[in-house]
Amino acid sequence: MMRSLALLLAAAVPATAAVAAPPPSAEHTRSYAPLFAAEVEAAKRDVEASIRAGINVPVPKDPGGGFTHEQHKRNYRIIFEGGQLYRLTGDVRYRDHVRDLLLAYAKLYPTLGPHPAAANQAAGRLFWQSLNDSVFLVNAVQGYAQIRDALTPAERARIDDGAIRPMAKFLSDGSPEVIGRIHNHATWACAGVGLAGYLLGDRDLVDKALLGLDKSGKTGFLRQLDLLFSPDGYYAEGPYYQRYALMPFVVFAAAIDANEPQRKIFDYRGGIVLKAVRTAIDVTHDGYFLPINDAMPDKSLRTDELYHAVAIAYAATRDPAFLSIAEGQGHTVLTPAGEALAADVAAGKARPWPFASRLLSDGPDGKGGALVLLRDRPTATGPLLVVKNTVQGMGHGHFDRLNWLYYDETGAVVTDYGAARFLNVEAKRGGRYLPENDSWASATVAHNTLVVDEQSHFAGDWKVGEKVPTQQLASRLDGPTRYSIAAINGAYKGVAIRRALLLLDIDGLGNPLILDILRGTGGGRHRFDLPLHFSGQIIDSDIVFDRKLAERPVLGTANGYQHLWVDGVGSAADKAAGKAARLTFMQGNRFYSYHMAPPAGARFILAESGANDPEFNLRRQPVLIQRIDGTDSATFVSLLEPHGSYDASAETVVGSRARVVGLDHRRLGDADLVVITLAGGRRLAVAVADNVAADAPHSVAIDGTAHSWTGAVGRFDLAKGGAK
Amino acid sequence: MMRSLALLLAAAVPATAAVAAPPPSAEHTRSYAPLFAAEVEAAKRDVEASIRAGINVPVPKDPGGGFTHEQHKRNYRIIFEGGQLYRLTGDVRYRDHVRDLLLAYAKLYPTLGPHPAAANQAAGRLFWQSLNDSVFLVNAVQGYAQIRDALTPAERARIDDGAIRPMAKFLSDGSPEVIGRIHNHATWACAGVGLAGYLLGDRDLVDKALLGLDKSGKTGFLRQLDLLFSPDGYYAEGPYYQRYALMPFVVFAAAIDANEPQRKIFDYRGGIVLKAVRTAIDVTHDGYFLPINDAMPDKSLRTDELYHAVAIAYAATRDPAFLSIAEGQGHTVLTPAGEALAADVAAGKARPWPFASRLLSDGPDGKGGALVLLRDRPTATGPLLVVKNTVQGMGHGHFDRLNWLYYDETGAVVTDYGAARFLNVEAKRGGRYLPENDSWASATVAHNTLVVDEQSHFAGDWKVGEKVPTQQLASRLDGPTRYSIAAINGAYKGVAIRRALLLLDIDGLGNPLILDILRGTGGGRHRFDLPLHFSGQIIDSDIVFDRKLAERPVLGTANGYQHLWVDGVGSAADKAAGKAARLTFMQGNRFYSYHMAPPAGARFILAESGANDPEFNLRRQPVLIQRIDGTDSATFVSLLEPHGSYDASAETVVGSRARVVGLDHRRLGDADLVVITLAGGRRLAVAVADNVAADAPHSVAIDGTAHSWTGAVGRFDLAKGGAK
Repeated sequence: MMRSLALLLAAAVPATAAVAAPPPSAEHTRSYAPLFAAEVEAAKRDVEASIRAGINVPVPKDPGGGFTHEQHKRNYRIIFEGGQLYRLTGDVRYRDHVRDLLLAYAKLYPTLGPHPAAANQAAGRLFWQSLNDSVFLVNAVQGYAQIRDALTPAERARIDDGAIRPMAKFLSDGSPEVIGRIHNHATWACAGVGLAGYLLGDRDLVDKALLGLDKSGKTGFLRQLDLLFSPDGYYAEGPYYQRYALMPFVVFAAAIDANEPQRKIFDYRGGIVLKAVRTAIDVTHDGYFLPINDAMPDKSLRTDELYHAVAIAYAATRDPAFLSIAEGQGHTVLTPAGEALAADVAAGKARPWPFASRLLSDGPDGKGGALVLLRDRPTATGPLLVVKNTVQGMGHGHFDRLNWLYYDETGAVVTDYGAARFLNVEAKRGGRYLPENDSWASATVAHNTLVVDEQSHFAGDWKVGEKVPTQQLASRLDGPTRYSIAAINGAYKGVAIRRALLLLDIDGLGNPLILDILRGTGGGRHRFDLPLHFSGQIIDSDIVFDRKLAERPVLGTANGYQHLWVDGVGSAADKAAGKAARLTFMQGNRFYSYHMAPPAGARFILAESGANDPEFNLRRQPVLIQRIDGTDSATFVSLLEPHGSYDASAETVVGSRARVVGLDHRRLGDADLVVITLAGGRRLAVAVADNVAADAPHSVAIDGTAHSWTGAVGRFDLAKGGAK
Repeated sequence: MMRSLALLLAAAVPATAAVAAPPPSAEHTRSYAPLFAAEVEAAKRDVEASIRAGINVPVPKDPGGGFTHEQHKRNYRIIFEGGQLYRLTGDVRYRDHVRDLLLAYAKLYPTLGPHPAAANQAAGRLFWQSLNDSVFLVNAVQGYAQIRDALTPAERARIDDGAIRPMAKFLSDGSPEVIGRIHNHATWACAGVGLAGYLLGDRDLVDKALLGLDKSGKTGFLRQLDLLFSPDGYYAEGPYYQRYALMPFVVFAAAIDANEPQRKIFDYRGGIVLKAVRTAIDVTHDGYFLPINDAMPDKSLRTDELYHAVAIAYAATRDPAFLSIAEGQGHTVLTPAGEALAADVAAGKARPWPFASRLLSDGPDGKGGALVLLRDRPTATGPLLVVKNTVQGMGHGHFDRLNWLYYDETGAVVTDYGAARFLNVEAKRGGRYLPENDSWASATVAHNTLVVDEQSHFAGDWKVGEKVPTQQLASRLDGPTRYSIAAINGAYKGVAIRRALLLLDIDGLGNPLILDILRGTGGGRHRFDLPLHFSGQIIDSDIVFDRKLAERPVLGTANGYQHLWVDGVGSAADKAAGKAARLTFMQGNRFYSYHMAPPAGARFILAESGANDPEFNLRRQPVLIQRIDGTDSATFVSLLEPHGSYDASAETVVGSRARVVGLDHRRLGDADLVVITLAGGRRLAVAVADNVAADAPHSVAIDGTAHSWTGAVGRFDLAKGGAK
């Protein structure tokens, strides 16, 4: 039983709010809530400008960022907006403009072959990659659905048969290598094909979208729901693509729910669609998606995909926390779901989003490791320790097992480069991923995790990495000692890596400390490098660096090392035994001291990205590398301490000196013990046991006193400045 | 006739709003406007915390950023705030806390000698430089004045004689080398001494503050008003110090007006105090002070100095444009002037600040050149071309005659490094100016102006520069062709430099173009370098650079060149005659193409600051240098074209390609003619005559057609793509 797509999204809001297409001649006079009214006005400006400019449906020629690319993008937006405006206002000018655009496509589309600017991606017809063709269809169908019943049968037939159905055919039967994948490109294709199928009443298209071209269920939308998200709604490729992929998932799910409510699609796999929306919001800081894997760091919740997702999720759940996200977005969608959401925002029903620590399992079965988010307060901008213990993340995944990032009120502090790409900037290779995305951005050394022998994990082969999960051994998401303990065996042949990362709230310190205990164990003699990529200006260090002041060499020759300019090399040789090394930098209005108790013989390399970059494709960002040579195993213990503040307006600085004055690591029995000493002599011990079983008892003697705990991590306040 | 200082600032507001100190026992119950109420609340939090913490008046020890430095700064703020709170609330706890603080200073101060951390600045007693002692006194007197009448005679005597008078004596008779200067440090000293004099009824102190230690008027506050500001209210050291100096000028002026209204201080020298406030607001972009000369680029109108200045200026003028500045500040002062301003903001009386082009003459007589601000729209964030044709700017001045900067909605595009300093960050040499401030930040090559033979202007001797004005030859501040033409002779021996900078509004382009015609004329054979310091990421260039990809040399050995890493060197040799070279970069969400029609034989050097920087004191920022060797004279013609936009949310890019496709320079008779060709063939000619007399007629033949104009600059639309 197919219903008009004009009702599709309406079905996701309560019956009382459901809106049938208005009689075409009636001008609506109802008043909109501000959030929705602004969208209506913006859409009117867009569509009116398009009406004035006239129909422009050019023969496809340019890659991303070029004129024809952008014009076809504009056109699908106009079709979507014009259709919604017609629904809202009944103004036939909108209907006629959308119709004329679609008729122009119906004339052009059948004449097209593969796009002339197609590169190594699957070629589209309107765009250089078929992905954009799918996005076109998802948008165009939603706009067309609003006017279709108001066209003449001849017009309808021309558009159906000249544009919508051929597009759906191209993206289904015509592109088996795309739609048959378990991948976000396939989801967009399924959504376009499925939406077209519902609109045209074409069961065959719908079934192919839902179940794959062979309708076996081995591919298709439902299988993607099974395989692309973990049970916690984490999308395999990471937050950036989670955002991007979300739109076809939620829009198609809403359409399925409207057309085939008996499928209970929002309950499918434990409510995976809505979990995916919630998780998408959780994997942000200050509204920006965490840029792990291939990711543009400027992508935020303020994107079209999330406007749709939030409106649809709110319609499905009525959870008022979605309303605060919508307030932060400052936008919603032109659909009935958007209108209902805006009304509730205006009614003051919003509640804060409950940001909290999360362990997001990875892999379809949740056994591929996890993305761990440790937060110590329920805010969008507060401290956030991100630990990347996921699987590879497919072709867009980076070689960064056990990587960590740190964010707080100043923004990104311990950073991920993200992708080397200038999205849609034509001069930068058509806006595609750049060569430096492989040679630098995805390399292990571009991340904050162990590099062995200057190689990337899995020798830089993502297909190998895809088969090797990370082992999430233990975690604690609440209390003053939050942590993640994980291990990866197989990133390097014969080398096992285990890492504990802890977010420690300390009485009397305004900011948490981040403690890192990383152990690499392998046969043979290796070079171990542990980079810290940070943002900000170096303030000072107690390491004596041999500075490269007047000629700047490159650190290495391959695997990302060729992109690092060396600024200086220092050693720990001048450090008294047990004395940590420190680098202090300033980021935003805060200071950060990175304390290191590295293994004996460690050296420190200060470097900056940007070498061997002929096209100026890289940003230049600092990195500190702890290096050990000729070792078969080593433990790196590091502590990041945020402290103090710089107030440019008041011209005041407080706390520019680190409070941590000592960081001492000892191996005691089957545990690592770290003693942190604060200025004034206060001492704190953290013990991490090899055996992480929750009920395993452990005990260590510190300064002659026995301390015991149960489970992976113990924490003790010690007597002031006792003998070691 | 001395009046209580409790009334001083009140006198600057109308009589009805004037507030006498309340009866100490009465709690005020009036309601404040939000802006003022927030200040009262913030002050209560500060002072209550200080009351809880108890009196802490440590023996001075630390330089800027250290504990005793910051504690004494906190204390003067508490004295100021506590005094005002007592006036507003009558709560004796505030009175007693301020009293106890002052009594502690009365005990400590007489025991102090020169500050132990004094460096090359004049030593203070409480602080490492006496400047901070002056600031202490200015604040402390204002707070003390509010409680003084409510103290016992014995308490009053102890504070007067142990703290206030000795401080005033130290800053006057005790520091003749400071207060006797014509310099902002002296203004602060005068304000402190004068305020103390009014409060204590000490005519001698007041006269010394107004007229200098010898009361001759050759130094002192009035002489500073004569000499430190140009007739347009431009402060000799530049915007950053204008901001800083403003506070003692306005606070002391308000006190003079309250105590000696017959002086009509606000009318002095044509109303120079209020002109200085208005000019301070004009020399900002997006609220941030233009960072010419020694300047921290993070300083904005959101500073205490400007809260005072705006409140006092509004009280004196009732110009509602000040209210919109206060709205932008989001703060005001705790004085009656601040309360009155807040009330009018709340009453909706604010009007936008009329940002406009300005020619701010420099030098006490206005004949030292000018700072030229060219704006094409009346907004705080719109396009702003800054041309620095001023005198040296004293010891904080940079060697940057004829320098230019460009700002627009994306922020700083063509940049000034500002100062090499981390204000108040103790680890950075106590927060003082760093060695790199001399070796890099003030050097000519760190600016966007001509460098001859790798030397700085005036051989880097500011005292020489101070004697040589810049000649502001012509300007136009309105219309579609705004410009400045100026010259400097004497920056280099035997070399005359003349530069025209034009802000061109072009029909059909959303952003103005900036045209630069710089001519250096000298005897002998010289190296001419013209740098462009810009912010953003390089997108592409049509110059073929010999890139320094794997080993990065330094550009030179002295005068700032030692701080530049070379990224690449290119030549114009592969350019067809008359063909310009282009570098495109992206800053914020906009593209910028820099087109160059350099002299024959020019080379292009891409470099970055940060070499020879052992303490990581420099930010790393890109620069493009146009270079000519072995020439006696040369003309550089360059054009900056802002274009297009990048929208991360919508994932769209438009206009990433430059619209300017040709830039051709010819010398025709006694004029420079530049022809700009846009994509599509449209051509525009700009002619700049040597003779800038407003009534001088000029004529050139272009493509066989005569074009004539009167005055310095002519502009003509040419036929499309005509023969050259």
